[in-house]
Amino acid sequence: MSAPPLITLLTDFGSRDVYVAAMKGVILGINPRAGLVDLTHEVPPQDIVTGAFLLAEAAWFFPPGTIHLAVVDPGVGTSRRALGAYARGHYWVGPDNGLFYLVFREAEAMTLVSLENSAYFRHPVSATFHGRDLFAPVAAHLSLGVPLTAFGPLIHDPVPLPWPAPRFALERVEGEIIYVDGFGNLVSNLKGGELLAWLDKAPFTLTLGSLKLSCLSQTYGDRRPGEFLALVGSHGYLEVALAKGNAARRLGVGKGSLLEIRKMV
Amino acid sequence: MSAPPLITLLTDFGSRDVYVAAMKGVILGINPRAGLVDLTHEVPPQDIVTGAFLLAEAAWFFPPGTIHLAVVDPGVGTSRRALGAYARGHYWVGPDNGLFYLVFREAEAMTLVSLENSAYFRHPVSATFHGRDLFAPVAAHLSLGVPLTAFGPLIHDPVPLPWPAPRFALERVEGEIIYVDGFGNLVSNLKGGELLAWLDKAPFTLTLGSLKLSCLSQTYGDRRPGEFLALVGSHGYLEVALAKGNAARRLGVGKGSLLEIRKMV
Amino acid sequence: MSAPPLITLLTDFGSRDVYVAAMKGVILGINPRAGLVDLTHEVPPQDIVTGAFLLAEAAWFFPPGTIHLAVVDPGVGTSRRALGAYARGHYWVGPDNGLFYLVFREAEAMTLVSLENSAYFRHPVSATFHGRDLFAPVAAHLSLGVPLTAFGPLIHDPVPLPWPAPRFALERVEGEIIYVDGFGNLVSNLKGGELLAWLDKAPFTLTLGSLKLSCLSQTYGDRRPGEFLALVGSHGYLEVALAKGNAARRLGVGKGSLLEIRKMV
Repeated sequence: MSAPPLITLLTDFGSRDVYVAAMKGVILGINPRAGLVDLTHEVPPQDIVTGAFLLAEAAWFFPPGTIHLAVVDPGVGTSRRALGAYARGHYWVGPDNGLFYLVFREAEAMTLVSLENSAYFRHPVSATFHGRDLFAPVAAHLSLGVPLTAFGPLIHDPVPLPWPAPRFALERVEGEIIYVDGFGNLVSNLKGGELLAWLDKAPFTLTLGSLKLSCLSQTYGDRRPGEFLALVGSHGYLEVALAKGNAARRLGVGKGSLLEIRKMV
Repeated sequence: MSAPPLITLLTDFGSRDVYVAAMKGVILGINPRAGLVDLTHEVPPQDIVTGAFLLAEAAWFFPPGTIHLAVVDPGVGTSRRALGAYARGHYWVGPDNGLFYLVFREAEAMTLVSLENSAYFRHPVSATFHGRDLFAPVAAHLSLGVPLTAFGPLIHDPVPLPWPAPRFALERVEGEIIYVDGFGNLVSNLKGGELLAWLDKAPFTLTLGSLKLSCLSQTYGDRRPGEFLALVGSHGYLEVALAKGNAARRLGVGKGSLLEIRKMV
Repeated sequence: MSAPPLITLLTDFGSRDVYVAAMKGVILGINPRAGLVDLTHEVPPQDIVTGAFLLAEAAWFFPPGTIHLAVVDPGVGTSRRALGAYARGHYWVGPDNGLFYLVFREAEAMTLVSLENSAYFRHPVSATFHGRDLFAPVAAHLSLGVPLTAFGPLIHDPVPLPWPAPRFALERVEGEIIYVDGFGNLVSNLKGGELLAWLDKAPFTLTLGSLKLSCLSQTYGDRRPGEFLALVGSHGYLEVALAKGNAARRLGVGKGSLLEIRKMV
């Protein structure tokens, strides 16, 4: 017997309500052998950018063939399309509103369908909860081996996301904080690899709010408690942290704050 | 090999402590193949009415035969009975304090037992944590196929719940807010089907705090951001929401607030 | 087919971020049949003492052979060792910083290894997230049957924890509050069995902040709403609770507060 198919779930539903549980019940009613893993359900309500970041941060640690069911869906019940996709070896199911943008933009080839075949939906389909009535049953049927193209027509124009791209200049990079994690670490939109290539080992000054730093650390333990540090975090982005403390709270800085790096050349 | 038996868990234990984990350990020690799904553990402490609402909202999305283990149990260790039940195709295990009232009141026939056969308990049975020592092992043994009647004598008088029923009059319905979800949507005790039958397409005015509305929407996306709307939510009850916002916070209205609908006849 | 191997997870990562999900993805990529159960991820950030308490409170309810993966790891990336252990019939994987102290101190014999065999790590091993890159893959390989000694050399000197021990005198015991649970119950470091043996049924006075009590209750329901009580909780420690209320909030007492018991002899 082969291993159970994996379905991950990411939503902005929180853990206080039973919306996520309803989705799981629907999935297990269709495929009792599906293995379910929560990514997070604490995406800030209707915040597609944060949902896209967290999905892209977690999904690649799962094995190929995993089905990622993601629902941050302010447009539920309107004309926004419902999406099923195969990209970079994984499956993706959710609203077509940019939530999968960070996945799709790095895919060389992919298959996208507009989920329209109501034979695979739960009926009646409510106007307010497609996570339960449309996306969950589609993910469950996918996990049973139904091919992607059975769910609807191919499409080629997924909705992009207004993702804040860093601006690289000759002696200066401007990035911004895109996520503050539960430890208060400030994650920027600067990818570690790109930043290090641009710096090319030159000395630099990083400015974030009232903070100035001039070196990169390897790990949180590099600094004494109470000292700030900048490092490339486990997600691959540059982040600013406070050793044994909460950088966001101490600096009074948060999502959307600008961060500047100047290179001495 | 058949699919693993499903056990759902709903409690007021929160996710900060390890009380839920202890219950899961006990279950998996008895039946390592049981599939466990959390409904929610964020029921407000000792709030049986909210627990009953959330249980009834989530349970029916699970397949027939699912075992629902629910523990909101302010009377633990006193003389309140422990309940095992089969009703409407599912199994129910928890304290006899009204927590299953919304399930039982719509059941045409059911089997109820008082859990008294200590051969199926974990020993020693603590006086403070029947979730772990009594309900979890009973649910686990149920999932192994032990028949309900093995756990104790049949009973016929489960404790009812002081559930707030709406009052329907000729030109007026009075309901109340029974639940505020994590988005701030205000869920009332008015069932969509009953309300629509009573309205019979007549014009109406809904009053909730300072808000007046005169139409029902199909979906949250029907209104522009910042506008209030009333709709029958995914749980089947009338709710009041704020498009892309938090209705409870904006209106200053919460659980227990009265809601009135007047029909123009 | 035998039952799936169980891996529990306890961290201070919270449920808002996707750090725990990344660990689960790594585990399931190595052993798709592993059964994963969360103990808690709400250990206060970097609070090893609370992590050790919650781990020891939950772990023993799981069946023998369970693998407990625990990560509260302020020293990640520094020279602190990584630990794999077999003690009291269970497996333990995590940083060597005292997190397993309450388990090890009661073990008669145990096997401890320093996790150094990088063939079992995820590469590249980040300097900031050994939970994902080192501990998760080791736990997954353990669950596949790799013997403990394959992961590194035997060690015999795990780092102890500055665990606050109660002070027993002839007529007086001084303990302290080590944990406040989600209900506001105040859990002390006094073990029920030791305390009862010391009291030997003599009358006593317990003092905690402004509260004085002179009897032990069997259960929360023993007292009327609003009355304080002391009892040996489900974890085996003496705790102070408020019937249908939050003792911590009402008394203004918390973790680290001292508690005194005087015996009338």
